[in-house]
Amino acid sequence: MTLNEKEILDYIDEINLLLEKAYVPYSKFPVAALLIDNNGKKHKGVNVENASFGLTLCAERNAITTAVTENMKKIKVLIVTGKTPEPISPCGACRQVIREFSDKDTVIILTNKDKKYKITSLEELLPYSFGAEDL
Amino acid sequence: MTLNEKEILDYIDEINLLLEKAYVPYSKFPVAALLIDNNGKKHKGVNVENASFGLTLCAERNAITTAVTENMKKIKVLIVTGKTPEPISPCGACRQVIREFSDKDTVIILTNKDKKYKITSLEELLPYSFGAEDL
Amino acid sequence: MTLNEKEILDYIDEINLLLEKAYVPYSKFPVAALLIDNNGKKHKGVNVENASFGLTLCAERNAITTAVTENMKKIKVLIVTGKTPEPISPCGACRQVIREFSDKDTVIILTNKDKKYKITSLEELLPYSFGAEDL
Amino acid sequence: MTLNEKEILDYIDEINLLLEKAYVPYSKFPVAALLIDNNGKKHKGVNVENASFGLTLCAERNAITTAVTENMKKIKVLIVTGKTPEPISPCGACRQVIREFSDKDTVIILTNKDKKYKITSLEELLPYSFGAEDL
Repeated sequence: MTLNEKEILDYIDEINLLLEKAYVPYSKFPVAALLIDNNGKKHKGVNVENASFGLTLCAERNAITTAVTENMKKIKVLIVTGKTPEPISPCGACRQVIREFSDKDTVIILTNKDKKYKITSLEELLPYSFGAEDL
Repeated sequence: MTLNEKEILDYIDEINLLLEKAYVPYSKFPVAALLIDNNGKKHKGVNVENASFGLTLCAERNAITTAVTENMKKIKVLIVTGKTPEPISPCGACRQVIREFSDKDTVIILTNKDKKYKITSLEELLPYSFGAEDL
Repeated sequence: MTLNEKEILDYIDEINLLLEKAYVPYSKFPVAALLIDNNGKKHKGVNVENASFGLTLCAERNAITTAVTENMKKIKVLIVTGKTPEPISPCGACRQVIREFSDKDTVIILTNKDKKYKITSLEELLPYSFGAEDL
Repeated sequence: MTLNEKEILDYIDEINLLLEKAYVPYSKFPVAALLIDNNGKKHKGVNVENASFGLTLCAERNAITTAVTENMKKIKVLIVTGKTPEPISPCGACRQVIREFSDKDTVIILTNKDKKYKITSLEELLPYSFGAEDL
């Protein structure tokens, strides 16, 4: 899927607003994600923390699992933002969950509150990856 | 929040249909959840598995994190279903995440494909619980 | 397995010392656990946090997974401590993992830095639980 | 830390034996890991599954959290094995946890039951990574 620069910047505006919905009482570190699925449908997610830190869910995985509930089969575009000085990068756990629902054409866009962005791919973020075909 | 029996059975019909959206290639064990939040808004979730089993997200937590993205502050009702012979019960991790967003009035309904159901509460499911006030 | 009060207090001394090994740069909330397995062997664990909060592992699960590596089949006794004013209680995720390796005789002891303790059981901590037999 | 080929093959023999300790009733997919820490001490781990799939812990994270309990500050060498035809690769979650305890010199060795192996690094496995300095 190809997005032009205006589309990318509009989506980034949209998720930067979403940052305020993040539930981050422990880290005070909000993250938001927007996903466009194989049906062209948009899904969103924020990070949701827990008093038992290990039960925290990242924004990217929140968006992906929301999308699966609504019939998503493949991620076309996933955009992630945070209040970091540079474009925020997904943690390894999120990269693995993206892996489950992506293909060679999946576009991953890392950005931040200042709309600085970097376009990347799962192959770049999770090389030599483990997946269902290994089981 | 009080639901009458007809409302409960209608919601159960709704999530039993949702079971087919679960992404369960590894366990073949679909679970679905429906949440009504403090704004009266409905949110849904299914379980979403991963080739790295530990990155699986349960249906209940999927519904809760979806709801948080859409402004949920408290869970009023959470209904969970599965293809089990008896009403399905949330795992401990889900109970802890419910704990983060519930209060004394939160109603938890466990059910199954046969619409057999059991009304319970977090206090019953997670007694002597750990939470934010312990940190 | 039955422990007398002196044995319990000695174990509590041992894990209160272990609290300093916890890796808790984000929460500053150390927890430690000690497990006695079906072979009478002792295993220990502390909580280990991660910059991606969701990848944090609790002390109880650390002790249990360490024990499994060393041949544990059943938990006989699990003792958990923290710097809380009251005996610390395991999160729901840990209760579920204890469930996988416990039976009716498993003793769970919750304690704290002041050696105040409470003896409990999985049945009390995780009633109406979900397990392998439901799959 | 530099290991010669004989040392590597001896360690691989050691963890291939460890595969039988994995607790994998659901996936039947055993994984084992061996870690050498900054003190030269060895630690081991196997994957430990759970009826609630999301509470599964991978072998690598089991070894790392066991090591932290015993004073590990940095991972010098981490070796991972499985019954895969090619050297097994850590999931994204494990890569993120390795990231928390590694530096430029950390050596990661991926191998399998046939002792085929590949020497790699965290930089290769988790490029453009997220970590504590982003928080």
